[in-house]
Amino acid sequence: MPPLTSPRSDRVKAVRALSRRSVRLRTGRFLAEGPQAVREAVRHRPAEVVDVYLTAQAATRHPDLVRDAVAAGLPLHEVTDEVLAALVDTQAPQGLVAVCRVPEPTLDDVLARSPRLLVLLSNVRDPGNAGTVIRGADAAGADAVLVSDASVDVHAPKVVRSTAGSLFHLPVVTGLPVEATIDRLRAAGIRVLAADGAGSTLLPDVDLRPAHAWVMGNEAWGLPEEVRERCDLVVRVPIHGLAESLNLAMAATLCLYASAGAR
Amino acid sequence: MPPLTSPRSDRVKAVRALSRRSVRLRTGRFLAEGPQAVREAVRHRPAEVVDVYLTAQAATRHPDLVRDAVAAGLPLHEVTDEVLAALVDTQAPQGLVAVCRVPEPTLDDVLARSPRLLVLLSNVRDPGNAGTVIRGADAAGADAVLVSDASVDVHAPKVVRSTAGSLFHLPVVTGLPVEATIDRLRAAGIRVLAADGAGSTLLPDVDLRPAHAWVMGNEAWGLPEEVRERCDLVVRVPIHGLAESLNLAMAATLCLYASAGAR
Repeated sequence: MPPLTSPRSDRVKAVRALSRRSVRLRTGRFLAEGPQAVREAVRHRPAEVVDVYLTAQAATRHPDLVRDAVAAGLPLHEVTDEVLAALVDTQAPQGLVAVCRVPEPTLDDVLARSPRLLVLLSNVRDPGNAGTVIRGADAAGADAVLVSDASVDVHAPKVVRSTAGSLFHLPVVTGLPVEATIDRLRAAGIRVLAADGAGSTLLPDVDLRPAHAWVMGNEAWGLPEEVRERCDLVVRVPIHGLAESLNLAMAATLCLYASAGAR
Repeated sequence: MPPLTSPRSDRVKAVRALSRRSVRLRTGRFLAEGPQAVREAVRHRPAEVVDVYLTAQAATRHPDLVRDAVAAGLPLHEVTDEVLAALVDTQAPQGLVAVCRVPEPTLDDVLARSPRLLVLLSNVRDPGNAGTVIRGADAAGADAVLVSDASVDVHAPKVVRSTAGSLFHLPVVTGLPVEATIDRLRAAGIRVLAADGAGSTLLPDVDLRPAHAWVMGNEAWGLPEEVRERCDLVVRVPIHGLAESLNLAMAATLCLYASAGAR
């Protein structure tokens, strides 16, 4: 097939529109941009990949990705540099963009698999933080990430980018009401640990061997009292120097790795 | 004194010019923006604060900061909202900006105090990462941060902001040649640990009780072989899931907190 050459075609406009949340919600699709995200989507979630767009140069540079996509029977579309730039409205996607279906795992699906380590994002608003926590959860071997209804859309391009491919590695359940979710986790025998600078228990003092879920709050104001009270324990990361606090992604990484180390 | 009202005055232009690296280098001054940075500068480094600019509203909102500044004999300048906006060229500084002298601690100063925990940034280029590592070093109780000559300018507004005040809490030595610095640390009896995904030793297996320094490499390409070879050990953070890697700030936070925990 000849490459797509018109940056003003309806197809290109429809892809680009996925940068907007309203369009993602209506169509149930989102964008994976750049070699890392596209490679992980193709490798780990081929059934969710709708279309892969790439330049001739990117095809030459990533033969493994092309081979995996062909093996999975995915539609590969060669595009010009101009069309590729028109597909996204953010940074340089290095010649590769995929349109993916938003997966819809449920809390039931996650609980059915007897998870040992979960993280619940409550009101996390910054795309970079949300993405970094998903990446950290993956690296720490968490079973899933749960995201509250008031958090950032994890399928926004900035979040997808900052997960560095991890969005395609573990189930990410979205749109959950925080308090009801905490209750369901506890009813399922999962200990719920709020991570908050106001916690009275220090991270190194917590027994992290039983199955548990970390609840991470908003970047600026942490977790509201009604959420903290619903948890089994409120835990804080010790501060040894003069720093007032750690940022959300750092605190989450430390909590998740403490969990991984306790296994 | 009446508030400064002209956003086009020479004084305002001279402050704003400190957003540029060349002007910081020439004048030896930099900007602290926002209540957190200004408060920590005034509290912990009053001798380095040259001028504090604030709106009437910020003065009312931060009486502790005003009291500390007055007690330290610092020049406080009330400015209009318009002047404040003209003092900086980045985000909203919430009514407060300070001009500070770039401190010049040396490696000799740091070594003279028998440090137990250090971090050396080698070719770290992203302002947010550099700032977050400085914040993490502070929180983990590190004695100082050492920054290589090829790294980002830690007195750039974006770095200052992402340290969340920690830039004023511990010595940050800049402009160091990486290899010679590693040699000097080792000669001083400090174990030098390279943090790198290519490491053969896992973080939990390292004895972190003796005095040591973590060497963190570039965001994208890590540490070059000639640097790794100069270190006592190359250490990697274990990855439990499918993630390819952690980002620099996460890896640094985990290494530094492992050190803090071993004390």
